[in-house]
Amino acid sequence: MAGGSKMPNTEITLPDDRCFGPDAQQKEIAMRLYAQVKNLPLICPHGHVDPRLFADPNYSFGSPADLLIIPDHYVFRMLYSQGIPLEKLGVPRQACGEQSRTNGGKVEHDHQGDLDHRKIWQTFADNFHVFRGTPTGVWLAYELCVVFGVKKQLTRETAQTIYDEIATKLTQPEFRPRKMFERFNIEVLATTDAASDPLEQHRALRASGWHARIVPTFRPDGVVNLDGPRGAWRKNIDALGAVSGISISNYQSLISALENRRAYFKEMGATATDHATLSPYTNELSKSEATTIFRRALRGQASADDATRFTGHMLMEMARMSIEDGLAMQLHPGSFRNHNDIVFQRFGLDKGCDIPVPTEYTRNLRPLLNKYGNDPRLSLILFTLDETTYARELAPLAGHYPAVKLGPPWWFHDSINGMARFFDQVMETAGIYNTAGFNDDTRAFPSIPARHDVWRRASVNWLAGLVVRGLIGMNDAEEMARALAYDLAKKAYKL
Amino acid sequence: MAGGSKMPNTEITLPDDRCFGPDAQQKEIAMRLYAQVKNLPLICPHGHVDPRLFADPNYSFGSPADLLIIPDHYVFRMLYSQGIPLEKLGVPRQACGEQSRTNGGKVEHDHQGDLDHRKIWQTFADNFHVFRGTPTGVWLAYELCVVFGVKKQLTRETAQTIYDEIATKLTQPEFRPRKMFERFNIEVLATTDAASDPLEQHRALRASGWHARIVPTFRPDGVVNLDGPRGAWRKNIDALGAVSGISISNYQSLISALENRRAYFKEMGATATDHATLSPYTNELSKSEATTIFRRALRGQASADDATRFTGHMLMEMARMSIEDGLAMQLHPGSFRNHNDIVFQRFGLDKGCDIPVPTEYTRNLRPLLNKYGNDPRLSLILFTLDETTYARELAPLAGHYPAVKLGPPWWFHDSINGMARFFDQVMETAGIYNTAGFNDDTRAFPSIPARHDVWRRASVNWLAGLVVRGLIGMNDAEEMARALAYDLAKKAYKL
Amino acid sequence: MAGGSKMPNTEITLPDDRCFGPDAQQKEIAMRLYAQVKNLPLICPHGHVDPRLFADPNYSFGSPADLLIIPDHYVFRMLYSQGIPLEKLGVPRQACGEQSRTNGGKVEHDHQGDLDHRKIWQTFADNFHVFRGTPTGVWLAYELCVVFGVKKQLTRETAQTIYDEIATKLTQPEFRPRKMFERFNIEVLATTDAASDPLEQHRALRASGWHARIVPTFRPDGVVNLDGPRGAWRKNIDALGAVSGISISNYQSLISALENRRAYFKEMGATATDHATLSPYTNELSKSEATTIFRRALRGQASADDATRFTGHMLMEMARMSIEDGLAMQLHPGSFRNHNDIVFQRFGLDKGCDIPVPTEYTRNLRPLLNKYGNDPRLSLILFTLDETTYARELAPLAGHYPAVKLGPPWWFHDSINGMARFFDQVMETAGIYNTAGFNDDTRAFPSIPARHDVWRRASVNWLAGLVVRGLIGMNDAEEMARALAYDLAKKAYKL
Repeated sequence: MAGGSKMPNTEITLPDDRCFGPDAQQKEIAMRLYAQVKNLPLICPHGHVDPRLFADPNYSFGSPADLLIIPDHYVFRMLYSQGIPLEKLGVPRQACGEQSRTNGGKVEHDHQGDLDHRKIWQTFADNFHVFRGTPTGVWLAYELCVVFGVKKQLTRETAQTIYDEIATKLTQPEFRPRKMFERFNIEVLATTDAASDPLEQHRALRASGWHARIVPTFRPDGVVNLDGPRGAWRKNIDALGAVSGISISNYQSLISALENRRAYFKEMGATATDHATLSPYTNELSKSEATTIFRRALRGQASADDATRFTGHMLMEMARMSIEDGLAMQLHPGSFRNHNDIVFQRFGLDKGCDIPVPTEYTRNLRPLLNKYGNDPRLSLILFTLDETTYARELAPLAGHYPAVKLGPPWWFHDSINGMARFFDQVMETAGIYNTAGFNDDTRAFPSIPARHDVWRRASVNWLAGLVVRGLIGMNDAEEMARALAYDLAKKAYKL
Repeated sequence: MAGGSKMPNTEITLPDDRCFGPDAQQKEIAMRLYAQVKNLPLICPHGHVDPRLFADPNYSFGSPADLLIIPDHYVFRMLYSQGIPLEKLGVPRQACGEQSRTNGGKVEHDHQGDLDHRKIWQTFADNFHVFRGTPTGVWLAYELCVVFGVKKQLTRETAQTIYDEIATKLTQPEFRPRKMFERFNIEVLATTDAASDPLEQHRALRASGWHARIVPTFRPDGVVNLDGPRGAWRKNIDALGAVSGISISNYQSLISALENRRAYFKEMGATATDHATLSPYTNELSKSEATTIFRRALRGQASADDATRFTGHMLMEMARMSIEDGLAMQLHPGSFRNHNDIVFQRFGLDKGCDIPVPTEYTRNLRPLLNKYGNDPRLSLILFTLDETTYARELAPLAGHYPAVKLGPPWWFHDSINGMARFFDQVMETAGIYNTAGFNDDTRAFPSIPARHDVWRRASVNWLAGLVVRGLIGMNDAEEMARALAYDLAKKAYKL
Repeated sequence: MAGGSKMPNTEITLPDDRCFGPDAQQKEIAMRLYAQVKNLPLICPHGHVDPRLFADPNYSFGSPADLLIIPDHYVFRMLYSQGIPLEKLGVPRQACGEQSRTNGGKVEHDHQGDLDHRKIWQTFADNFHVFRGTPTGVWLAYELCVVFGVKKQLTRETAQTIYDEIATKLTQPEFRPRKMFERFNIEVLATTDAASDPLEQHRALRASGWHARIVPTFRPDGVVNLDGPRGAWRKNIDALGAVSGISISNYQSLISALENRRAYFKEMGATATDHATLSPYTNELSKSEATTIFRRALRGQASADDATRFTGHMLMEMARMSIEDGLAMQLHPGSFRNHNDIVFQRFGLDKGCDIPVPTEYTRNLRPLLNKYGNDPRLSLILFTLDETTYARELAPLAGHYPAVKLGPPWWFHDSINGMARFFDQVMETAGIYNTAGFNDDTRAFPSIPARHDVWRRASVNWLAGLVVRGLIGMNDAEEMARALAYDLAKKAYKL
C-alpha cells in the first residue's frame, strides 16, 4: 500500500521518519526540526472546501465513497486513466448545460443508495496499487490511518471491512466537519468564492456563533475572463449585478460592482483575491479601449484577442484595487481547462482533465510589475504549473520586486518531489522570505492535515540537508522551519 | 576508466552495487530488489538492431571497430566533438545522393583492412577518458567486461591487446548474434522497419526455424512525413506502392496501402508502429483537404504548411488504424534531424547531429486525444527529448487519458540521471502503471544487456529511495520493480 | 547565519566539509578530492572586476559598505525585494541621462560620509537572515570569515563591531587589491571591456611593472547590438571610431574598426571576446543587406527587425574573426535587461532587475554552427539562464560540434544547486571535456575565492557521488577534479 510499512504485512504503519532522508544524519536532524513544527496550527489561506460543511453544525459527509472518491478528481482521474469509466466511480453526469463548479460533499448520485457506493469503494480498493508512489497515495494513507484510525491496508480483501469501519465513524459526532476542523488544529481556513457569490454560507457560519476563523476569497474569473465556457460569462455578469445592486451596463459599472464586492468580501473576513488565467499576460488598456471591448462582450461580439487584452487589463485593475484595499492577490495561470471534450461534456468542470501548458512570466507580467510591483503594499502571490519558470523567472522576479511572493508548489507539484524541486530551484535566488509558505488548495477536507504534514516534512528535510552540508546553522534551520510551516503564509496573506 | 573500480588500478571491476545509493541503506534495499529482477528475460519492444544479424546464422560482426565504434553514433559523435575527424573513426563517406539508414553491422570501409581498424581502435582508446561519467562509458564498461570478458582497463597502452582479445572472441561461435541473443536472455526483440520494407530478413528468420521472437515495427515516417530529405519521399511512396501492390495515385490509395502493410507487419509478428515527427502536432483534415494536399505532394508542390498539416492528419489516421488493428502506437517527436549540414552531406543520416528542440504536447495532441484518447483499445506511447514536458504535460496526460502511456527516457536521457529525473518528475502524477517500462532503442546489439541493466538498477534504486523514506512498503517495491523491468513493457506493447 | 555552524552560537565556523554530502561516504571521498584541488591557482577568465583596483597600487576599497553592499547587485536586490529602498542601501541615483556601467569600487555616495555607511551596514545586518540558504549568504560567510577573519556572526547586535573590524582591516596594506590578488592565488584574471575602451587602466597596469596577469576581454555589445538603450548606441559607435582612428561611416568601416580593436585587445593580453544578446539568434546577411541596415541605424531609422537581423549577423562575423585571430568567443544570451523601469530610470544599469527569459539554441545557432561549428580553431563558449536547455540543447550541441564548449552555471545558477543541476543535466551527454570549467563572473572582487571554492566543492561532491555509485574510479575522479578546477578553463579560454 502507498505510504505503507517497510515489511510485507497488511498493517498500515506510517513511519515517524517518513519523507525524511535518505541520509541517516539528515533524517535525524529532520526529525528534530519536525518535532518543533508538527503541532503548529494549520494556516489554510487558499483552498476549495465548501463552506456548507461548517455552516450546518450537523453536516454529514455521507458514505466513504462520498467523502474520499466521488468528489476528488485527484483520485478518479488516476482510476480513469487505467480504463475505469467515471460512471463506475460514481462521478455524476452533468445535467445538460449545467457547468457550475461542485464543491465536494454530497452529490446527486446519493439516491442510488449505499450498495452502489460499496461497489465504487470495491473498485477503488481493487485498483489501489495505482496510487503507489503518488501524493494521492500518501494523503490517502494518512487519512485512512491517522484521520480514520484504519489499521489494515486497503486491498481487494479488506475493502468492505474498511468501508464499514469508516462508514461507522462518519456517523459519529467526532466526525462532523466542525469537530474535525478543531481536531485538525486549523487556525484559519479560506474558501474560494465567485465574485457574484452572496456568501450566504459564510454569513450563516458567522451567525452560528462558532468560533472558527473561516474566510472567503474573492475570485472574479467568471466575470473578468472573457474566454470561459460560452454563455456562462453573461450569467456571471448578471449575477454580479444582482448581488451588488449595481446594474452592469458598461465597463465603469463593472469596476464599481467589483469594488463593491471586494469591500463586502473584506467585511466578511477575506484577506485575498484569487485569479486563474490561461496566460499571465498583463497590459493596461485606456479607459476607452476597455469600455469598447466590454461593450462588445456584452453584445456577445468579443473576439479571442479582445478576451486576452481585457483579461490582461483586469489583472492590472485587480492589482490597483489590491493596493487600495489591502487584499493579497493570487495568480494561478497555465492550466488548459477541460482538455478532454468528452469528459467535460458528460461530467462538467474539474474532472481531472485540466492539463498544464508552458507559461511565461517575465514579459507577461512586466506591465503590471512596472506599474505596481515596486509598491510594498501589494502582496502578489504567484503560482505555476510550469516548473521551468521557478529558477528562470519566478525566483528572479520574487528576489527583486517588493510586491512579488511565490506561492507553494501547486496541484501536480504539491508532492514530495514537487516540493523538493521547488526548494532546490526557488530558494537560492528568492530566499525563503519571498515565499508564501504552504496552502493545501484542496476541496477534499479530510486531506488537509495530510497535505500540511507532507509540506512540513518536506521543508524540514530540505533544511536538514542544508544543515548536514554546513550551509546553515541549526538555529537558522529552526527559525526557517517555523517560517515555512506557519509565519510566511500568515504574512503573505495578511492573516 | 568510465564504469571502473574505486581504487586506482588497471583492472576493470564493475561493483555489484553500482548505480545504487549514495545512501548505504538505500543501496542495501536496492541490492535486494535488484536480485529479484536482474535475471528476468529482456523485453526489447523498440530498437534498431538489423534483422540480418539473426537471419543469417553465420553472421559475423567483423572487427572490434566494426562492432563497437563505426556504427555507433553515441561513440563517434563524442570523439568528433573533441576535434577527431569522422574519417579517422572509419565512419564511411556516403556515396553521392545516398541517404538510406544503415543499420549497424559491416560497413563499406571494411575493404581498407584490419590495419585501419587497429588505428581506429587506438584513437578510441587514446581518447577513452572523454566517456567518463557518460552513459556510453557505462555501457562500454559493461560490454567490455561482461559481454567480452575483458579484465583490463582500456588505455593507450592496453588498446592493441584488448583489440586482439575481442577480435579473437568475435571469431568464436559463441559470439555469433544468435548465440549472444540467447545468452542475453532476450524474450522478444522488435526491429524498426520502413512501411515499404518487404521484411525479407524477417521472413528468412522465420523460415530458418530458429525459435527466437524477433518482430518488425511499422514505421511509416518516410511516406507520411512530407518534410523529410528532398526526393526521398517520392521514392518511398513508389516503394510502398510496389511492395503493397497498390498503385498510390491518390490519398485513398495511400490509406489502402498503409492498411495493407500494417496487416502484413502484424502477420509478421509486429505489435506496434513507430512515428517520428518534428512536432507532435495533430489535426484532422477533411477527406477533400487531405486529398488535395496529397495531390500537391505527388506533384512536388506541397508547401511547408501542407507538410505540417498532412503529417498531423496522418498521425490521427494512424491512431484510428491502431484502434482497428490493435497495434500499439509510438510517437517520438522533437528531434531536429541533421542539424549539421556538412556532416549530413558527407556522412548521411544518424551521425550524431540530431539535436532536440522544445516540444509541446498539451495543445498539439488535443485533436488526437479528443477523438481517440478515451478509447482503452489504443495504446499511445509517448516519448520526449524535452524533459520539461515530463511533469508539466506528459504525466498529466498519461494520468488522465486511458490511451496514453509514457515511454522510458529517450536517447540523450537514456542514462542514470535521465532515468532519475524521469522517475522523479513523471511517477508522482502518472503513477508507474501509466508507463511503458523500458526499451533500449539501440542499433548497437551488444549494448542491449548493458542498457537494460542500467534501467533495472536505476529503477530499483528509485524504489529503494521510496522505501527508505517510508513512502512505499517493501512488498510494493518488489511488485513495482518487476513491473518496471518486465510487465509494463509487455502490456503496453501488447506482447 | 548563512554558512554558519551546526550548533546555535554566535561564532562563525565554516565546516571543512561544507557543501559535501549529505551521504557520509560521499563526504569523505569529496574531502579527499577537495584536498587535491583547493590550493590550485584560480583561473578567472570571465569577470567584471574594475582594472582600476590594480592599476593604482594604493587603491583603497573605501568603507565596508562600499566594498560589500553598495556595488553588489546580488546583495541589494534581495534587500530591495523585502521592501528596503535602494536609497537606504547607498545605491547612487544616476545623474539624468547617464547610463554607463559602473564597475564596483567607490561610488558617488561617498561624500555623505562614514556615518551613512554605518547605517547602511546596520540595515544589512538587521536583515542578514534573508540570505539564509542563498549563494550570496554562502559567499558573504566566506568573505567575512576567511577573507576578513571575522569570527562573530553578523547580527543586529554585532553589526557595528564587525563594521569597525573590517574598516580597520581595509586601512591595512594587506587589504590593498594587489595584495589580496596575490593572497587569493589568482593566476589570471580577465576583465570585461567595451570595444571602444582604450584600456588605459590595463596599460597603466602593465606599465607599473607588477607581475600579475590581468587581461581585458573584448565586449562589442554596445556597437553590434542595435537594441540597447536609445542614444547609447550612437555614442558607442563614435567612441569606437575615435579609439580606433577609423571613421565609422558604413558597415565596412565598422568591420575594420572591430578588427582593429580585437587586434589591440589581443596585444593587451586578451584571449576572449564576450557577447550578450537577448536571443542567440544568428543568420548571415549579404554584404549589401548588412550595409543597408547599418546605414539605417546610423540615421536612427533601424527597426526592431533590423536590430535582430543585424545582431544575429554580427555574431557570425565575430565567429569568423575568432577563427582568424584565435580569440575564444563567449555568448551570454537570455537576460531581459532593466525589467523594472522605475529602478532603471533612477539607478541605471545592473541594479538587480535583469530577469531571464526562455532561450532557444538549436535553431538559433544553426546558421553559425553550420558555417563555423566544425572548425576546431573556434572555441565558442555558451552560457544560459534557461536551464531547460542544458540537457535538451546545449549538451547535445557541445557533444557534437568541435567548436562548442559549455560555460559554467551562470548568474542565478552560480550556486550549489545550480551547479548540481548543471553537472547532472549536462555531463552525461556533453562529457566534462566539452565544458569550460568555472568562471566567477563577478564585479565583487573579495567574493572571487568564495565563488571558486563553491565550484570546487560542488564539483568534487558530484564526482564523489559518481565514485560512491561505482560509475567512475577514484583515479578518474582525481583527474576530473583537477580538470574542472583548473585545466578546462585554461584550455577553453586559450590561456
